[in-house]
Amino acid sequence: MIVDISKRILIVGLGLLGGSYARVLRRFGFPISAITLEQRDIDYAIREGIIDEGSTQPDPELVGAADLIVFALYPHTFVEWIEQYQGLFKSGALITDVTGVKGSIVYRIQGMLRPDVEFIAAHPMAGREVSGVENSTDRMFSGANYIVTPTARNTPEAIETCMELGRLLGFSHVATLSPEEHDEMIGFLSQLTHCIAITLMTCNDKEHMEQFTGDSFRDLTRIARINDLMWSELFLENKSALLEQMDLFLTQFTRLKTMLEEEDVEGMRAMMRHSTERRALFDKK
Amino acid sequence: MIVDISKRILIVGLGLLGGSYARVLRRFGFPISAITLEQRDIDYAIREGIIDEGSTQPDPELVGAADLIVFALYPHTFVEWIEQYQGLFKSGALITDVTGVKGSIVYRIQGMLRPDVEFIAAHPMAGREVSGVENSTDRMFSGANYIVTPTARNTPEAIETCMELGRLLGFSHVATLSPEEHDEMIGFLSQLTHCIAITLMTCNDKEHMEQFTGDSFRDLTRIARINDLMWSELFLENKSALLEQMDLFLTQFTRLKTMLEEEDVEGMRAMMRHSTERRALFDKK
Repeated sequence: MIVDISKRILIVGLGLLGGSYARVLRRFGFPISAITLEQRDIDYAIREGIIDEGSTQPDPELVGAADLIVFALYPHTFVEWIEQYQGLFKSGALITDVTGVKGSIVYRIQGMLRPDVEFIAAHPMAGREVSGVENSTDRMFSGANYIVTPTARNTPEAIETCMELGRLLGFSHVATLSPEEHDEMIGFLSQLTHCIAITLMTCNDKEHMEQFTGDSFRDLTRIARINDLMWSELFLENKSALLEQMDLFLTQFTRLKTMLEEEDVEGMRAMMRHSTERRALFDKK
Repeated sequence: MIVDISKRILIVGLGLLGGSYARVLRRFGFPISAITLEQRDIDYAIREGIIDEGSTQPDPELVGAADLIVFALYPHTFVEWIEQYQGLFKSGALITDVTGVKGSIVYRIQGMLRPDVEFIAAHPMAGREVSGVENSTDRMFSGANYIVTPTARNTPEAIETCMELGRLLGFSHVATLSPEEHDEMIGFLSQLTHCIAITLMTCNDKEHMEQFTGDSFRDLTRIARINDLMWSELFLENKSALLEQMDLFLTQFTRLKTMLEEEDVEGMRAMMRHSTERRALFDKK
């Protein structure tokens, strides 16, 4: 399958990400439909010209007409949807997703999926502090990463199509990782940072601190405003990889604390120089 | 003493902060001189019209002519300077500073200072990732906090003058705290955040992570690029207050880790809701 604009695309879950996918892809001319819980989101998206048609139910006609289906649901809802409704897929359809964890999802879906349908997993690493289709935008993916996580079950064609989709969406960096590499990376770069932010935000409830807050505290806690339903599920679905990253952090934090207790200035300075050097790698190119 | 523009101001230590003080104050018309280590910084500042005159030595004439002296030095250098050269101060001079820790500095300086000179401590909570007088700017203080930390030895006039200085410099929020309150607050809001950033930046050295880094990781590690000489000294000078804040963080982080291990979703969600609610207080007004 090559992505050409005669292909019919279905978005399941029309929120911030699903809506942003629809906005970009419709601009290219693809026919876009959506299945999502709320009728008002469908009405909004049709009025805004983001989708052509939609349904609050897994409408057999909509599902059966789609060549490419993008699932933008919570992990457990995604798995349940496939279990219940995969009979509706057109033979030869390609399924992809936006789920932020991979190891606990990809093998389960691929293991239960009809043999005439292929699931190629992807993680668009983009987000905002707001949610909902009304906050979606066609400029959300510039500068962001799009990771495809193929397994031995995937065909080269599906992998290539999925990567092409990422490029069409406007991601600046499209790459592949194994589901395990992905989960380790995301455990460190995204989930551990959220754990740190919510810990920092809740470990000292002293009053009036906000009067003295500067930019660095604000930067470290921006993501402490968090969707508790989604993130508790993402943490749990990536439990072992995240716990490993939390342990790495705890060990190093405790090392720094011991150095301060022992007034080991040289040790602290060496760690700060290491930190400064390594941070330079992470500057935006 | 009221701050009027006939008062002669001396900056000791013409770096990023000292230079920015000089830039703003000179605009008001104050005569400004500086003492700093490098002749090239003095040459630059005179050429740029930031100061009127300067010296690389504690020149008796410059020091003896000053009505208001601002020390922008590392903590231990500040203490040593006072020990060695306080004989040069004009009787009635007012001394202030920019030091980022207070309890370990303020009482020592006030305890050794000549009785005809007053030291009123202040902490301008502003900074950039760059240093040096050539990076100083007269717009650094807008939106930032200026904390005066008086003790029982300070006169109401000196406290008022120091607060007026903060307002003249353009700080958006000028307040007083006791040295102890200041150190607890700074231990939490500034030093703990730096400890977290350098820990996060050095706890996992896996290669190629930077290819997948998004904005949240960048936000949490921006301050991981750190001046090791200055910050190791600031940590040490605030050792007990910082260790307390590190313990609060460790306790809460370990609580979160245990909840994840035990798959206590309700516990994690409650912590995330607490975090979300508390973060709202810290939004920029």
